[in-house]
Amino acid sequence: MPTPKLIALDWGTTSARAYLMAEESEVIGQRSAPLGVLNVKDGDFEGALLELCGPWLMVRTETPILASGMIGSRQGWAEAPYVSCPAGMAELSAHLLPVEIARRRKLWIVPGVSITAPDGIPDVMRGEETQIFGALTFAERQQGSGLFVLPGTHSKWVRVVDGRIVWIRTFMTGELYSILVAHSILGKLIPTGEAPDADAFERGVNHAHNDPFGLSSLLFSARTLPLFDKLPATGIADYLSGLLIGHEIYTAERALNAIRPAFDGVTLVGETALVRNYQRALTLVGWSSTSAPAFPAASGLWRIAEKAGLLGERVEKSVSLA
Amino acid sequence: MPTPKLIALDWGTTSARAYLMAEESEVIGQRSAPLGVLNVKDGDFEGALLELCGPWLMVRTETPILASGMIGSRQGWAEAPYVSCPAGMAELSAHLLPVEIARRRKLWIVPGVSITAPDGIPDVMRGEETQIFGALTFAERQQGSGLFVLPGTHSKWVRVVDGRIVWIRTFMTGELYSILVAHSILGKLIPTGEAPDADAFERGVNHAHNDPFGLSSLLFSARTLPLFDKLPATGIADYLSGLLIGHEIYTAERALNAIRPAFDGVTLVGETALVRNYQRALTLVGWSSTSAPAFPAASGLWRIAEKAGLLGERVEKSVSLA
Repeated sequence: MPTPKLIALDWGTTSARAYLMAEESEVIGQRSAPLGVLNVKDGDFEGALLELCGPWLMVRTETPILASGMIGSRQGWAEAPYVSCPAGMAELSAHLLPVEIARRRKLWIVPGVSITAPDGIPDVMRGEETQIFGALTFAERQQGSGLFVLPGTHSKWVRVVDGRIVWIRTFMTGELYSILVAHSILGKLIPTGEAPDADAFERGVNHAHNDPFGLSSLLFSARTLPLFDKLPATGIADYLSGLLIGHEIYTAERALNAIRPAFDGVTLVGETALVRNYQRALTLVGWSSTSAPAFPAASGLWRIAEKAGLLGERVEKSVSLA
Repeated sequence: MPTPKLIALDWGTTSARAYLMAEESEVIGQRSAPLGVLNVKDGDFEGALLELCGPWLMVRTETPILASGMIGSRQGWAEAPYVSCPAGMAELSAHLLPVEIARRRKLWIVPGVSITAPDGIPDVMRGEETQIFGALTFAERQQGSGLFVLPGTHSKWVRVVDGRIVWIRTFMTGELYSILVAHSILGKLIPTGEAPDADAFERGVNHAHNDPFGLSSLLFSARTLPLFDKLPATGIADYLSGLLIGHEIYTAERALNAIRPAFDGVTLVGETALVRNYQRALTLVGWSSTSAPAFPAASGLWRIAEKAGLLGERVEKSVSLA
């Protein structure tokens, strides 16, 4: 097995993923657990770290540990203050937050990135910045520039120019979908044992993308269409998903038009099924998109660790001990 | 006590209100119960009717009974098919659905109203049409024309021209507010024992009304503003309410601009506290508004009963029996 050089942690709200990495950012081990920030009992983050990647910690005690995501939030292990846009690898690696753990070892936390719009409204991310820099390594498009979409509970649209994050827009798409299905009158109309309905999804995307009316009005069509037998009840969930994603794309498009950036398609970063849905939706409304390769968080953490000198230092130390 | 001429029922999803009415639509008795359509066990609507206004049914067995609202829906007592726009008193009263009850008596149900937008998306209401015609009786503005807003779980914007409903737009404002507060990450940020925060409400309205970005993005500001200490946690619920109402007004305004109607302010019909919030929001964005007098449903039911000949027939019968 190649020598481990980094323990990289993608530590989110509900789950945590750990990567053992070797030279040239090769992933040589992977572990994950439902030990997200909200699931760690009594603030015992060190216990969670041990549970998640104990063997790796034991074998080589000098391997540096770098984490990104909600672990650096107010609800996490320690709060790593947001770095303001424009934020690139240099800004992130200069603001890693160290947390002391057993045997005088340190775990480093990547800060999140924030932006404040001209109207005073802030936007933020934690973890996505690392995934983006991971995706950039591979994509290397437009000298490190591009438009990134990271679908999820809180979907992020992020513009990168010359290797720095300059614009963030968050959409509560995933969360709205979940609570509408679980708790609204629309959810009550959805039969159990529902099958995927590509047509319903497509209609939702097109409707939201073409219709200038607002989301709280659009959503009601998921009630009225089945009422008039214009949508099967089995298609309501996919129609809703299409509406929310279509609305997200429509809104992002307007916001981007306002700042008139030069970009050439979108890079999608995220879970395969979700990325596939966004690709379908983007294609429907005429956007080109590609999806980022696997392990963008691991690659991003590797790059940040390298930039911060975590790998170099440790390598030297390791050499001197040998 | 004046002679009862009508038992008028405003029978909705969660509650039912009954009015005993005399000549000139005077309300001489009122009862209400949580016997809305969803709360009636085993479809025993007649039992619910008896529980709600039994004594009135006993005293004068010839008093006509007219009901509006979700009682006429697929989940209600009997389905009264929607009447299409344009729909006025004549169309509604010509399509009352009779339901036979004990002693060969009938309960009549007012149909809902539907519209299909040019893009094929339907919109509907049940019960609001009756409240609007009740409000028109009193308002008598512009020869029976106007723009009505009925805030609630599913808020309705309704345009009436020459006494006929010509345009309907539903917003899921109330329901989105409830499920976001109860089930989303935004709700988790709201402390218990929260006090009303007029400033937060106002900021929400202004932000949503001025910002061209979509609702699923706007909502995230209820998370980021407190994160940067720009909004007290105690103000999150009112800020959310302001965002949703502001978004509703913004969207309605755009929709109305597209059809370029002539109207002079808005008539608000609904629960006092909710109407007050909408009046504040409308004033903030420069709309004039008035609120409808009490009992719009009762007044509307009276007018429809009169137009349908229910009052005249029964009066004659009552006279012949005396």
